[in-house]
Amino acid sequence: MAERNIEGPSARATRLLRALRREPVDCTPVWLMRQAGRYLPEYNQSRAAAGDFLALCQSPDRACEVTLQPLRRFDLDAAILFSDILTIPDAMGLGLRFAAGEGPWFERPVRDEADVAHLAVPDPEVELRYVCDAVRLIRRELGGRVPLIGFSGSPWTLACYMVEGRGSSDFRLIKTLRYRRPDLLHRILEVVTEAVIAYLNAQIAAGAQVVMIFDTWGGVLSDADFVACSQSYLARIVAAVADKTVPVVVFTKGGGLWLERLADTGAAAVGVDWTVDLAEARRRIGTRVALQGNLDPMALMGSADTVRQQVVATLERYDADPSLSPGLGHVFNLGHGLSQFTPPDSVAVLVETVHRYSAEIRRRRASSSSLS
Amino acid sequence: MAERNIEGPSARATRLLRALRREPVDCTPVWLMRQAGRYLPEYNQSRAAAGDFLALCQSPDRACEVTLQPLRRFDLDAAILFSDILTIPDAMGLGLRFAAGEGPWFERPVRDEADVAHLAVPDPEVELRYVCDAVRLIRRELGGRVPLIGFSGSPWTLACYMVEGRGSSDFRLIKTLRYRRPDLLHRILEVVTEAVIAYLNAQIAAGAQVVMIFDTWGGVLSDADFVACSQSYLARIVAAVADKTVPVVVFTKGGGLWLERLADTGAAAVGVDWTVDLAEARRRIGTRVALQGNLDPMALMGSADTVRQQVVATLERYDADPSLSPGLGHVFNLGHGLSQFTPPDSVAVLVETVHRYSAEIRRRRASSSSLS
Repeated sequence: MAERNIEGPSARATRLLRALRREPVDCTPVWLMRQAGRYLPEYNQSRAAAGDFLALCQSPDRACEVTLQPLRRFDLDAAILFSDILTIPDAMGLGLRFAAGEGPWFERPVRDEADVAHLAVPDPEVELRYVCDAVRLIRRELGGRVPLIGFSGSPWTLACYMVEGRGSSDFRLIKTLRYRRPDLLHRILEVVTEAVIAYLNAQIAAGAQVVMIFDTWGGVLSDADFVACSQSYLARIVAAVADKTVPVVVFTKGGGLWLERLADTGAAAVGVDWTVDLAEARRRIGTRVALQGNLDPMALMGSADTVRQQVVATLERYDADPSLSPGLGHVFNLGHGLSQFTPPDSVAVLVETVHRYSAEIRRRRASSSSLS
Repeated sequence: MAERNIEGPSARATRLLRALRREPVDCTPVWLMRQAGRYLPEYNQSRAAAGDFLALCQSPDRACEVTLQPLRRFDLDAAILFSDILTIPDAMGLGLRFAAGEGPWFERPVRDEADVAHLAVPDPEVELRYVCDAVRLIRRELGGRVPLIGFSGSPWTLACYMVEGRGSSDFRLIKTLRYRRPDLLHRILEVVTEAVIAYLNAQIAAGAQVVMIFDTWGGVLSDADFVACSQSYLARIVAAVADKTVPVVVFTKGGGLWLERLADTGAAAVGVDWTVDLAEARRRIGTRVALQGNLDPMALMGSADTVRQQVVATLERYDADPSLSPGLGHVFNLGHGLSQFTPPDSVAVLVETVHRYSAEIRRRRASSSSLS
């Protein structure tokens, strides 16, 4: 394992924040969803030491440790808080559990009027204090070398888990609620929205410099319901972030049809999955927001040459229009989280290629425009 | 159970075929993906009598019986062959199995060069004769009352099952093949494409009057790979359908970003899932192809009033542009298959509302244009 020097001031300290504000940067910043995770042996050691995933999230020391692990290996331009999107419903008393190999589930899912009536907004500095403490600790440990990203699940995505009780392939229970008792569904979404607002503001107060909202299941909604059940709540959250200097990134997986609506939330940046052509996304919303994405995580299963080719192709799609400033407003990422089966060496190749090739495009364009 | 009269000539005999050719019809035709299936008690009886799902598919008599079951209950405008998309890989010797509650899997998935070298195109009148026999029998039993739709999985979708061996959430194995050995992946896609062409032509020769290609997993591809791994093969199939009078419907679930490319395949109609706004889909490709869809299957979990509202809203989105001929080129369907938990009464309400309300829109527009 190659130890990286993460001391000292560098362009990395501001690259992500500048890109999110659509300001020029020396090269395209890169971080990866689930960059701290099971593909790293040191992560698996930390998790084993903690006992289980939830214990890892709930210990600020351990959460800080695993947050920093990928930064020791790779020249990433940001740290992202190690936590889980389901901390909010857990703090609401639903009883989060992780069964080995089965994903998360709730002991007390929200199914009827009485369950909904019991939902209350947790105080992030009380029920979710372990998250705020982790943010404070990570921020201190980072010492300004790279910014720290905080995050939350979107109201719709959290509601999916809260009602279904676990992952789902057809979302039958929450959709039955939507079609049978839309009043109850919207009551859940209201409470969760208030909880997300308080949670993100608390993370920011604790030191998060960017916040991201993961709308993992927004893509299962109909076109009309996406606006009613997800986008409108995202917009309320963005408007309620108290510190207007903190960029908000919204990401709806499977939301490529709705990029304009995602930009309309007021977010600084929109995450896009790998089904989206970045040239088209930039044409549609790239003058209004930064774009984050969008390599297929499975591209990292390829050889080093393939990873390089795929990264280059992604960067070139972003810069397909020669009239636009190269790389402006692009934050390189995957289109979804890193797979646990990813070879760490692929991540090293990815990060190196993003920085090198995006700087090269900038130089090439600068020299061709100075010649003309 | 209300027995429907399915005797005698009627507008139903030609409504679907005319709509697929974008010709005027009295009202919008409707059929539903998985209209024969577990939500019907009589289907469950037939399946129990057959022993299992595969035996049901492989018996032409039983397949014919379950194909006709929904037509006895509902005024549907088409029958669709009862079969499974995995018949082709099964005929290729992969050993299709259905484990109770777990979905289909293959005993001999395709994993390496030797597996790929062994793949051969089955003769549909030999290895898949049971399907052709079912088509002949159903066509005879229908007696021209409604047309019969044949179908196949898309090459990409079949390849997903063949390589993964079963359903997948991350498609890691086939995507690893795509990034590590694209030559092998394309060899699989080539052979499967030839098999699909022979299979659809055999179904048409046996009596299928429309064929549909289900690209269930096309939506997991990146934008560039959708063209390379799915759309280009769909186009080859459409071009190779020998009887040019038979409309081909292509449906990529999660393919809303790629509607133009789906229309470019040369298909007569493009199926759209519920994430797509029909007004937008019609604007994008509705002058070139018919559109099939796109109610969220879970809308059928609502009350009768809710089902009516949702059907009306779907029809109205298709007719959002008052300058276009009402309903022209629309085939009403769900955005994906019927859930096994669907109350049959919801289907009755859906079918009745589609016919009644779409006829009403046509009358309203005709009288307002004669007044102006």
